[in-house]
Amino acid sequence: MNLLENHAGKLFVLSGPSGAGKGTICKELLAQTSRDDVQLSVSMTTRSPRVGETEGVSYYYVSKEEFLRRIEAGELLEYAEVYGNYYGTPKQPVLEKLAAGVDVILEIDMQGALKVKENYPDGVFIFILPPSMSELRKRLTGRGTETANAIEMRLGETLKELSYIDKYDYCVVNGQLDEAVSRVKSILTAEHSRVTFTAEELISRYKEEA
Amino acid sequence: MNLLENHAGKLFVLSGPSGAGKGTICKELLAQTSRDDVQLSVSMTTRSPRVGETEGVSYYYVSKEEFLRRIEAGELLEYAEVYGNYYGTPKQPVLEKLAAGVDVILEIDMQGALKVKENYPDGVFIFILPPSMSELRKRLTGRGTETANAIEMRLGETLKELSYIDKYDYCVVNGQLDEAVSRVKSILTAEHSRVTFTAEELISRYKEEA
Repeated sequence: MNLLENHAGKLFVLSGPSGAGKGTICKELLAQTSRDDVQLSVSMTTRSPRVGETEGVSYYYVSKEEFLRRIEAGELLEYAEVYGNYYGTPKQPVLEKLAAGVDVILEIDMQGALKVKENYPDGVFIFILPPSMSELRKRLTGRGTETANAIEMRLGETLKELSYIDKYDYCVVNGQLDEAVSRVKSILTAEHSRVTFTAEELISRYKEEA
Repeated sequence: MNLLENHAGKLFVLSGPSGAGKGTICKELLAQTSRDDVQLSVSMTTRSPRVGETEGVSYYYVSKEEFLRRIEAGELLEYAEVYGNYYGTPKQPVLEKLAAGVDVILEIDMQGALKVKENYPDGVFIFILPPSMSELRKRLTGRGTETANAIEMRLGETLKELSYIDKYDYCVVNGQLDEAVSRVKSILTAEHSRVTFTAEELISRYKEEA
């Protein structure tokens, strides 16, 4: 904390192809930072809570009617329908955290990130990339949830999805997890060091104190 | 190093009012990083070498005629005349280091930084600030080289000089040296994580390897 510290939080959108490891990076980032500084955005959904899930932590659970009302009212930064259930990012909790000086991390796919960018262009958009296609193939194969054919199709999709990079401010290659997390943390620090005030504001802050 | 690493170096201009501690930050930054990654820009001067100074390390020493020829030829990023001697930043050694993948740090006053910005707008401009005017007064008094009156005049000047902040990308308050150095290092890392390639370049790099 000091004379110049930018007290408002910033929204950091972490996005990238499946298997790049954005979820792992988020988890590790949150483990290494205080809840006073950084928090994950909580999604809203119309699906039922599962065992072990907590309202306001895992998701905000609402009815379909309520979800549709929120879409209409423009209260979501983005949303999508998946197999009949709605998922989205409510704007209000994000804005409240930012106002309280907490950075918000939103982990989301590229389509979602694009919608967030439309609705909140002040966000900082970070693209998480796998170190190589062969490493991505290895990771997806290691999960054991898809056939070799399905994986090859997905890799083809991933190559196309890389074209989203144009919309992002930063990219971080997730080869070594520790290095990737440290790089994301540097991006957070650097973004808080940006000149976001006018010369007049700066001078008056120093004068007040002098 | 990886598929995406931006191999070219970047020019980081560290600047700020006298007493903010930009010199100390530079020294500590260089001590904490490898010469393969980060190097200080070496100035050119027409003044004579002093005992203990080394050509190409402390300064490049040239005649006044040679210096004026370089100004004419546009070979300097900035220059100034001080008490009959010329001081400046030759462009060529900076560009060579950048091409070799080395980041170059240029420690310079605000007037010089502005000229560098005109001649090399791709530089990253970092403003180093004292934590407060009272701390700056303490530091300047501690040097014991100026009268109390001269210090008060200088503080007045400093307040005016803060108006240069508009031209800078980042600002770092030098309260705790370690924290300030770490912040500058984060800025270097973040700047190397910027998306500086097109989607086509990215896709072709991943395809080559796949």
